[in-house]
Amino acid sequence: MREVFHQSLEDVQSRLVEIADLVTVAIDSATRAFETSDVALAEEVIEADQVIDDKAVALDELAIQILARQQPVARDLRIVVTALRVSTSLERMGDIAEHIAQLTRMRFPERAIPKGLKGSFTKMGELDVEVARTLSELLRTEDLALVETLRGLEEALDELHLKVFEKVLSDAWQGEAGATVDATLASRYLERFADHAVSVAKKVAYLATGDWSVDTDSIAVIAEATEIAEAGAGN
Amino acid sequence: MREVFHQSLEDVQSRLVEIADLVTVAIDSATRAFETSDVALAEEVIEADQVIDDKAVALDELAIQILARQQPVARDLRIVVTALRVSTSLERMGDIAEHIAQLTRMRFPERAIPKGLKGSFTKMGELDVEVARTLSELLRTEDLALVETLRGLEEALDELHLKVFEKVLSDAWQGEAGATVDATLASRYLERFADHAVSVAKKVAYLATGDWSVDTDSIAVIAEATEIAEAGAGN
Repeated sequence: MREVFHQSLEDVQSRLVEIADLVTVAIDSATRAFETSDVALAEEVIEADQVIDDKAVALDELAIQILARQQPVARDLRIVVTALRVSTSLERMGDIAEHIAQLTRMRFPERAIPKGLKGSFTKMGELDVEVARTLSELLRTEDLALVETLRGLEEALDELHLKVFEKVLSDAWQGEAGATVDATLASRYLERFADHAVSVAKKVAYLATGDWSVDTDSIAVIAEATEIAEAGAGN
Repeated sequence: MREVFHQSLEDVQSRLVEIADLVTVAIDSATRAFETSDVALAEEVIEADQVIDDKAVALDELAIQILARQQPVARDLRIVVTALRVSTSLERMGDIAEHIAQLTRMRFPERAIPKGLKGSFTKMGELDVEVARTLSELLRTEDLALVETLRGLEEALDELHLKVFEKVLSDAWQGEAGATVDATLASRYLERFADHAVSVAKKVAYLATGDWSVDTDSIAVIAEATEIAEAGAGN
């Protein structure tokens, strides 16, 4: 029974990584499709999103099963709770890739990227792919140095997001309303993607340390709760 | 010990309702501030969002504590898991109210609502307040008829969202790029708000029924898991 339990816990972690890897593929394809107006690639992203959604639901089910059947404590409990809290964010990141692919498809055969913004969007796309890869690596290794890497990427994306607005609102902007809508939505999506990743990263930090928040005042209650449970489990 | 346990479970549910009520106040104030360019009210919403965030974190902590200390099963387990999965969405709904308030503040003393869209945005705001109230009521009563009410509201918001885009992209649209950006963001926020509510509603349906998804194929695994745990708990 114990062995089965540890297998299913490993399963939880490997499934989280698997979903993060799928999200990485999705954002990589979606941003490339957006940049090159590749509608076939955009269609692929839209279709593949269902797989991410299904895998997130299946992971939630597994996590709830483990809670119900095996009543994990301490680090095991943290793994299960983290999976429940992270799966939704990963699913949302997949949705964002899908939204970018939908923008591409909607505008085809015209370019989805408005004139004058190609450089900004290419850079934002590259950063988001880096965000997804780093997040996958963080889930795989629990190397908390990567949390800082993700924060840095998020800040860079925030700056680019603001620059897009500056351009759109400048006198030099000649885009029509359609181009303005596209630029607003795409920039917002690309920026949100990194927000979700940072939110996941905080939860992984909790998984690794048992400390609720690495960046704000340390909240000892969780560590205390798991310690109590740990002590109780010895009975 | 049992009595303490049941008190903390009731506490979980009442805290969910409390957060949903705060979100209702936030979206009500935010949409009114947006409509009337009331920057003082917008500031209130922005300030109050921290309370929602803090309460969501505190609820997560309580839920994890209960999992660690009391290893709940069956319906009790579902309550705790639902709290963990719902708190994030409620927090996001609060964030959306804050974003709308920020739009209002950013444009002040000018109107945040672009010309020609006042009717659409007033209607969307009213519907979002209705969404928040219905969600609160659903969390309080677990009356699953309200899930359908929420779906209806979400559909109405989707339609209004599309109409905003139609107007912005029509030849009659005379807004400058700034107005187009504002309309795009505000409409997207107001539409997303209902999406989150429906996502919460699905999780509440799981809480009430033990069935994972009310709208897709019924997944029996959760009910099975909780039954097994329930049977095991008799030992």
